[in-house]
Amino acid sequence: MSAYACRNREELESEAQNLLARFAGLKDKNLKLDMSRGKPSSSQLDLVSDLLTVLQKGEECMIDGSDCRNYGDLAGLQCAREYWADVLGCKSSQTFVGGNASLSLMHDLIARGFTHGLVNSPRPWCKEEKLKFLCPVPGYDRHFRITETYGFEMIPVAMTPDGPDMDAVEEMVKDPAVKGIWCVPKYSNPQGYVYSEETVDRFANLKPAAPDFVIMWDNAYCVHEFEGEFEPFRDIISLCADAGRPNMVYEFASTSKITFPGAGISVIASSEENIAYWSKLAGVQNISYDKINQLRHVQYLKDKAHTLELMKRHARVLQPKFRMVLKMLRSELTNKGIAHWHHPVGGYFVCVAAMPGTAKRTLELCKQLGVTFTPAGATHPKGIDPEDSMIRLAPSYPPVEELEAAMNVFCVCLKLAALEKYLDEKLV
Amino acid sequence: MSAYACRNREELESEAQNLLARFAGLKDKNLKLDMSRGKPSSSQLDLVSDLLTVLQKGEECMIDGSDCRNYGDLAGLQCAREYWADVLGCKSSQTFVGGNASLSLMHDLIARGFTHGLVNSPRPWCKEEKLKFLCPVPGYDRHFRITETYGFEMIPVAMTPDGPDMDAVEEMVKDPAVKGIWCVPKYSNPQGYVYSEETVDRFANLKPAAPDFVIMWDNAYCVHEFEGEFEPFRDIISLCADAGRPNMVYEFASTSKITFPGAGISVIASSEENIAYWSKLAGVQNISYDKINQLRHVQYLKDKAHTLELMKRHARVLQPKFRMVLKMLRSELTNKGIAHWHHPVGGYFVCVAAMPGTAKRTLELCKQLGVTFTPAGATHPKGIDPEDSMIRLAPSYPPVEELEAAMNVFCVCLKLAALEKYLDEKLV
Repeated sequence: MSAYACRNREELESEAQNLLARFAGLKDKNLKLDMSRGKPSSSQLDLVSDLLTVLQKGEECMIDGSDCRNYGDLAGLQCAREYWADVLGCKSSQTFVGGNASLSLMHDLIARGFTHGLVNSPRPWCKEEKLKFLCPVPGYDRHFRITETYGFEMIPVAMTPDGPDMDAVEEMVKDPAVKGIWCVPKYSNPQGYVYSEETVDRFANLKPAAPDFVIMWDNAYCVHEFEGEFEPFRDIISLCADAGRPNMVYEFASTSKITFPGAGISVIASSEENIAYWSKLAGVQNISYDKINQLRHVQYLKDKAHTLELMKRHARVLQPKFRMVLKMLRSELTNKGIAHWHHPVGGYFVCVAAMPGTAKRTLELCKQLGVTFTPAGATHPKGIDPEDSMIRLAPSYPPVEELEAAMNVFCVCLKLAALEKYLDEKLV
Repeated sequence: MSAYACRNREELESEAQNLLARFAGLKDKNLKLDMSRGKPSSSQLDLVSDLLTVLQKGEECMIDGSDCRNYGDLAGLQCAREYWADVLGCKSSQTFVGGNASLSLMHDLIARGFTHGLVNSPRPWCKEEKLKFLCPVPGYDRHFRITETYGFEMIPVAMTPDGPDMDAVEEMVKDPAVKGIWCVPKYSNPQGYVYSEETVDRFANLKPAAPDFVIMWDNAYCVHEFEGEFEPFRDIISLCADAGRPNMVYEFASTSKITFPGAGISVIASSEENIAYWSKLAGVQNISYDKINQLRHVQYLKDKAHTLELMKRHARVLQPKFRMVLKMLRSELTNKGIAHWHHPVGGYFVCVAAMPGTAKRTLELCKQLGVTFTPAGATHPKGIDPEDSMIRLAPSYPPVEELEAAMNVFCVCLKLAALEKYLDEKLV
């Protein structure tokens, strides 16, 4: 079971024969499996469906003397702001509770920067000659699409197991055209890395040339361990304030992977000055977000401690799935020298770095066997992975049996794609 | 009870004495009443609170083979799109169902026009030298704030009982800098006028110089009669298509005044080409809106006919309030020559045109007596009513007894403000 690179042609051809036999067998199964998105599974949704019946009567919608069925409270119910402050470790006055999607809050913040500028902007971003944004790669396609839509040149920054390459980041922010960076500090999408203490400190202490440089701190998986205990994280809001740049960071989170992905609540946390400015602009767009759903969530989730208990129940559903994926990767791909991956303990993804030039081909072959993955390249700005290497696996949605079949397909196809490189011929 | 203009000084002074006595009496009551916003009352919210329990179990969230608790269906559940198509009289393929606020959809459409342009835009609006928008006055302050925020010069257009002055509109749209117009076609905010058949036809047949001119057709009160039977309205989408400009109109509506103001569902209706373009941009901002709430609404409201039955029940709550307001105006202000108003049969407002130069003073005096109204000027772009005349009354929220007290205050103060003009001296 030596590395492909160390085998002779005969050995490689015999490996190819074995794999082609497996490929044919898998084709006969007529699979139709989807591992493309980080969607919670039905059993996770069932776990939290008591949320539907938290509020049953009109009078239960009264909170702190106001009726959450009616207009008002743009920044969210006070109790919802306190809930998020508890989860994120910031102050409730530093939060703004939104609708069902933190993605919308992120989009709208960038959009407002573009049309109006942020608190410390000399002018709206649309008036700048050139706009650049730092994009740690591999990263989250939906982040990159936002900055792409607003015309940013997206500068890739390498990810390391400790987070983005901070030497590079510190260098790049000297360019005043660089207006911000996308971050997923805990269980990064897609690799599942956790930013180290040093990385977080270096972020808080960044000295960007642009006065309105913004750290988009998407804490999407802040309480989302599927292995082991909850890993505490530090409050980036106060860290930036302590370092003298309180307006540099906006943190985002949501209950999309705590309760219902399409029907949860979301939050922005930032300095009070940023929240006040944001609220002024958000008040043109909205009278208030859905406060009934906010109240439902607060009564259901209660606080951070209670949320962590619920996350343990999610973990019990997710853990066997991730273990299956990692087991298959280990047993099929270890020591072949054609792929490597991190073993995450939280988040929603496993990211396989395939042999350069084989990611697209791998997924093409998978498709022939009826299994869909996130398109190769999706982890990079504009969908272009120059190495053609990164593949994001999303184990959360399919049941374990299907995952096993899908991973079987994946490993066979990844190896075939590698062999095609070594043998320099198409095998399928 | 002759017009103030026909009375001599002595008569005016004696009228002032009577009013000042009433003013003093009202002051002693220490009122604290709010008639500033078109908020439904608690009893209306109670009417619809069974909405809270429509969906009780996870399995009830399955619809058309998909799970509305999970991600997906950016344009909304098919059944929700069909619901709105039924209400608005268009096709479901011409609808996009949003979150809890049609205001957000309107804001975001203008914002996208600004940053990206609309379907027929030669360039994004932010790249235009000059941007103008037509604002029928009096109108809705939140509309005007959107176009103000995006830097439009707002051109007032006079409202008539048949809708905006179409001679003026047809003339103004010859200017290619004019990118659109705000409309509330049924029970206009604040006067409660219904656009005539001719007005609607002239809108559909507009020939604006700007290829991306947009009619913002805010059908906020499309089923909101509080007197008499439902008044059918025509489908502006097909009228514009028939007239050869299918992409010229975007229609908006919501359940904000059908179910819960802060927690309803909203819709954009437009040509399929516009909806496809909008969906492409909306897909950067969101994965999907809250489909659980969409399903809840569809199951609760069922269809247009069933919605109209519910609106009859809202009408029974609203009717006595509007009648009280109109009765007070009639008995206190008729034939004084100092105010006129339209008697609406639907919508959420009554608009009083006070003697020019007295609106602000009237509301100042009301405030002294503890009663708050929508600020004078709010009905005009940038909050400036050049005539200082229009006052919007929002009768929906307070109970009838409070309304009577508030209207008592209003009429006394409006008359005092007029007398101050005639007598040329401050009375309070």
